[in-house]
Amino acid sequence: MLLDQISGPKDLKELNVAQLEELAGEIRQFLIQKLSVTGGHLAPNLGVVELTLAMHFLFHSPDDKFIFDVGHQSYVHKILTGRMEQFDTLRKYKGLCGFVKRSESEHDVWEAGHSSTSLSAAMGMALARDLKGDDNRVVAVIGDGALTGGMALEALNHIGHEKRNMIVILNDNEMSIAPNVGALHHYLGKIRTDRHYQKAKDELQHLLNKIPAIGGKLAKTAERFKDSLKYLLVSGILFEQFGLTYLGPVDGHDIDGLLDILKQADSMPGPVLVHVITVKGKGYSPAEADSHKWHGASPYKIESGQMVKAVGPPMYTKVFGDMLIQLAEQDERVVAVTPAMPGGSGLLDFAEKFPNRMIDVGIAEQHAATLSAALALEGLKPVFAVYSTFLQRAYDQVVHDICRQNLNVVFAIDRAGFVGPDGETHQGVYDISFLRHVPNLVIMMPKDENELRRMMKTAIDYNDGPIAVRYPRINGVGVELDAHPEPLPIGKWEWLREGEGNVILAIGPMIGVAEEAADLMKREGALVGIVNARFIKPLDEEMLLAIAEQGNRIIVLEEGAELGGFGSSVLEFYSRKGLYEVPVRIIGVPDLYVEHGSIEQQREEVGLTAEHVAAELRAMNPRRMKRVTGQA
Amino acid sequence: MLLDQISGPKDLKELNVAQLEELAGEIRQFLIQKLSVTGGHLAPNLGVVELTLAMHFLFHSPDDKFIFDVGHQSYVHKILTGRMEQFDTLRKYKGLCGFVKRSESEHDVWEAGHSSTSLSAAMGMALARDLKGDDNRVVAVIGDGALTGGMALEALNHIGHEKRNMIVILNDNEMSIAPNVGALHHYLGKIRTDRHYQKAKDELQHLLNKIPAIGGKLAKTAERFKDSLKYLLVSGILFEQFGLTYLGPVDGHDIDGLLDILKQADSMPGPVLVHVITVKGKGYSPAEADSHKWHGASPYKIESGQMVKAVGPPMYTKVFGDMLIQLAEQDERVVAVTPAMPGGSGLLDFAEKFPNRMIDVGIAEQHAATLSAALALEGLKPVFAVYSTFLQRAYDQVVHDICRQNLNVVFAIDRAGFVGPDGETHQGVYDISFLRHVPNLVIMMPKDENELRRMMKTAIDYNDGPIAVRYPRINGVGVELDAHPEPLPIGKWEWLREGEGNVILAIGPMIGVAEEAADLMKREGALVGIVNARFIKPLDEEMLLAIAEQGNRIIVLEEGAELGGFGSSVLEFYSRKGLYEVPVRIIGVPDLYVEHGSIEQQREEVGLTAEHVAAELRAMNPRRMKRVTGQA
Repeated sequence: MLLDQISGPKDLKELNVAQLEELAGEIRQFLIQKLSVTGGHLAPNLGVVELTLAMHFLFHSPDDKFIFDVGHQSYVHKILTGRMEQFDTLRKYKGLCGFVKRSESEHDVWEAGHSSTSLSAAMGMALARDLKGDDNRVVAVIGDGALTGGMALEALNHIGHEKRNMIVILNDNEMSIAPNVGALHHYLGKIRTDRHYQKAKDELQHLLNKIPAIGGKLAKTAERFKDSLKYLLVSGILFEQFGLTYLGPVDGHDIDGLLDILKQADSMPGPVLVHVITVKGKGYSPAEADSHKWHGASPYKIESGQMVKAVGPPMYTKVFGDMLIQLAEQDERVVAVTPAMPGGSGLLDFAEKFPNRMIDVGIAEQHAATLSAALALEGLKPVFAVYSTFLQRAYDQVVHDICRQNLNVVFAIDRAGFVGPDGETHQGVYDISFLRHVPNLVIMMPKDENELRRMMKTAIDYNDGPIAVRYPRINGVGVELDAHPEPLPIGKWEWLREGEGNVILAIGPMIGVAEEAADLMKREGALVGIVNARFIKPLDEEMLLAIAEQGNRIIVLEEGAELGGFGSSVLEFYSRKGLYEVPVRIIGVPDLYVEHGSIEQQREEVGLTAEHVAAELRAMNPRRMKRVTGQA
Repeated sequence: MLLDQISGPKDLKELNVAQLEELAGEIRQFLIQKLSVTGGHLAPNLGVVELTLAMHFLFHSPDDKFIFDVGHQSYVHKILTGRMEQFDTLRKYKGLCGFVKRSESEHDVWEAGHSSTSLSAAMGMALARDLKGDDNRVVAVIGDGALTGGMALEALNHIGHEKRNMIVILNDNEMSIAPNVGALHHYLGKIRTDRHYQKAKDELQHLLNKIPAIGGKLAKTAERFKDSLKYLLVSGILFEQFGLTYLGPVDGHDIDGLLDILKQADSMPGPVLVHVITVKGKGYSPAEADSHKWHGASPYKIESGQMVKAVGPPMYTKVFGDMLIQLAEQDERVVAVTPAMPGGSGLLDFAEKFPNRMIDVGIAEQHAATLSAALALEGLKPVFAVYSTFLQRAYDQVVHDICRQNLNVVFAIDRAGFVGPDGETHQGVYDISFLRHVPNLVIMMPKDENELRRMMKTAIDYNDGPIAVRYPRINGVGVELDAHPEPLPIGKWEWLREGEGNVILAIGPMIGVAEEAADLMKREGALVGIVNARFIKPLDEEMLLAIAEQGNRIIVLEEGAELGGFGSSVLEFYSRKGLYEVPVRIIGVPDLYVEHGSIEQQREEVGLTAEHVAAELRAMNPRRMKRVTGQA
């Protein structure tokens, strides 16, 4: 195997094109093999095997800076930079990260996870290089989907203005995660499908040479006329107009062609955009056939391409999607808005049923949020379905457009709390902290999948402003689903278990942890109450006052940032009421980024476990507990 | 006066073009007159007089939806929709809002303040219209500066994809607030400066008619060749490629021309972009000569164009700009990054002195933040100068790119706290709440302008990660400035006044309020301590423990959101330490949007006053205070 001889990019440089092609085949087999066990972003990586080989063959990482947008397509890069051995630990706790990770290798120079950051990073690195007087290359790889993210377009505008040397590789596979939307997509499509492109180009050049010089009054016009021909010689006029030199399109699986075009790009001054057409899932037929499904794959059987199916109750995401259909049937104001995540957000069935009421805006969270504001202003009921971590992109639009105008936008915040293998870039642990202080917003989290349905009904019925329901990236708990869920009274919590002197206020999946902790304490003779604090905002003030009056010690349990989170709002409430002596302890996610692993491992790492909650309860009740456990 | 006869848009429709022109003159005089007293966005409004007249003449607001990007150019619209009388109260407390405001008029259908939201709003309104089966027009007015904001480009991509009927008026005055940057700007410039444009177009059409039909092998090529000519007949290829029909450019001060082109746009299906060239400050020579200075004008003398100069100590903004020059002289790693606010951020002198180290990216906060991350990664020391309210746009980039990678980016957060006449869309009251929970970030706020200098020195010297210094939109307090400011120890607060039993933890300008309050209490015999809590994060834990040990009641005073703010972090600290009984009361900005007025009025409205602080102190100390005041 050639692959065994590659310990770093320098080993690549000895190979010829035929050997590179052979190596590409080996890498594909390696990826198909390894990911069948671990799962991971198979299709995107199969698509960039030749491209990554060409980059490492021609250029000199890490002096030359390779910036992978999102970073989920960096597996080949990892294989070529000495991390082949670690693929068994891919996306596992303390294992190989599924994205670019600086602590793993000097070849990893820019970390991402969210899309559309690569062009800003490249621009910064090029500026820094020029200020320092260095002469390294800067090479960004960005997908056609990520290109529609506003910050990528902001960066493009700046790149075209500054004209620094850099290569932007547009990895065009006709989709981001879902099939792509947007005018840019159509534009790229036009270039791609132009089969006669090369031939026409040649013919045109021929014709051009034949045009005689025109004098007199028409001279200037004729000159412009000739100028205009460049629009036929260059496909990527749009990028040219943005100030970049456009090269391509080139077949991203033809190593010879890739080397040629990258060499050409490297020889040109200023920013050059190289348009590379790749096939997601290339070389593994199940993935080629359904690259959407294989974007992020679960473990699978290689022969059949059958993925391991999740077992257990339906995911919250699925319950959301089903319920939205039901609500849309009853209420014609309901429309769904997604930033390129129709599948991930459980909206595929909705899209099929209500194609006109399904608005997929592409990777564009800011636009999605403000568009929702306008839809609400006109009397519709937009449900903005978005992952917690991606809603971060639309924070200003939430503050300035939706909540300030107090519009009836429903936020369906998926992947709230820990997300497991995607790790630190995707944790949904900040939304409470960045939403709670925004005026006019109601925030809910359900204890189970049936309550999710009730909350969605609540949200659709609510017409006093914006309302959010957040739910985790896990299976439901398996409760029965009401056929016609009743709405909940806004701001009312629920006692799940009576206690004596101690109460846990828990939200979402933390209710399960609270129940385990209460069971542990019960064995020690302590009765711990549990409240389903399903409204994160507004608080159930009546219940909080009653809890304080009863002289309870309170633990707030949340799978979210401890700073500025739900627990914080409980502290603020008692402070505001002058009830300074109420003991409140917060157990949440401490002030750090939690890396990839399973959700259970992530909870374990930060102490969101029954054992830890029980220990905190004991610490809050030193005398009593000691008595119970016979130590005093 | 014609103007006196205009009580609403319908009165306009009786006029002929000559009368509209006369009216334009009257409106200009009205604006120049009124704003000389109140101040306000003079130049932008003088630029859109004819455009706004043409819109209201041709179309039918409020059935047709007029969406003004930012909304600072809506004064003419306000005059034409019955609000002329209220201009004496412009931007004053309870007076006419400086932006579009739905509560003022049915003709105000979309509120903004931040830029680049109009295209998303227009898209939402067009989608809603079509879903509801209505047939109203949707007309957005967006400046060339705002167009570079990422969310506007996201929307453009969606608009070109959906092809709904709408008119996007590109109000191109070659600048946003500052002279514009970016490739799009150059692109528009190329169209604008093409003086022979119309003539060339005519000649080309002539030439085109003369080209004979070509047969045989070259037929297809010839066809494409003819096709390519449309690129000469249409200037706005870029917009065409985005899927919009482009019309223009047209002189934005020629009512006849405007009416023609808007009628043409109205007759075309799908989204049409009308490129209107306007002159900022048109008709008032001082504003035409320096439209940057006159973007937002202070009151001025009409004859001379002399603006009322602010008196008193230098603004914090100015102190920041001066100090940054000093630091850049000492440390060549220092570069400044601004999203189109070189003037507003006090960086004009810096730009002159260090043109290569001044990076203005245009209206593009997201890109600015992530670009800064990359600059830091490469060993530079980027100072990202941004208003608190605009940093909201870069929240995700702060979380995901800067703080997660723990990079040495310095945030210079201007306009923190209330901002006065710009009002609710611009209040800098959320940054503590949206930054405090982000790991790795240090956050400071100075008590005076000399401490700002020390904090900047601290920030530049700090190499352990991101660090922010926030400062208000007011004058300094007038202290002497150290020539060579010493850095501060990270996380260390400062006792300003010793007390007995009561302590106020105050930040920034709230220290002045705390001192007044303490003076009031002193007259009642109570000694109130004051701490300059200059590090919002990390907290001075040692001092907090000492304060608790001494049995103090604590008031936290901050000009920022009470929810999740600095006070909240004090509550969290004592909870974390198990010191549940420490009385902490937070006085900050409650959970609502505070409208325009003076900063003093805004503080008054929410109780950020010495009197209110004193009252809260009395409430926290019922027995003691009663005794002192002889009531018990």
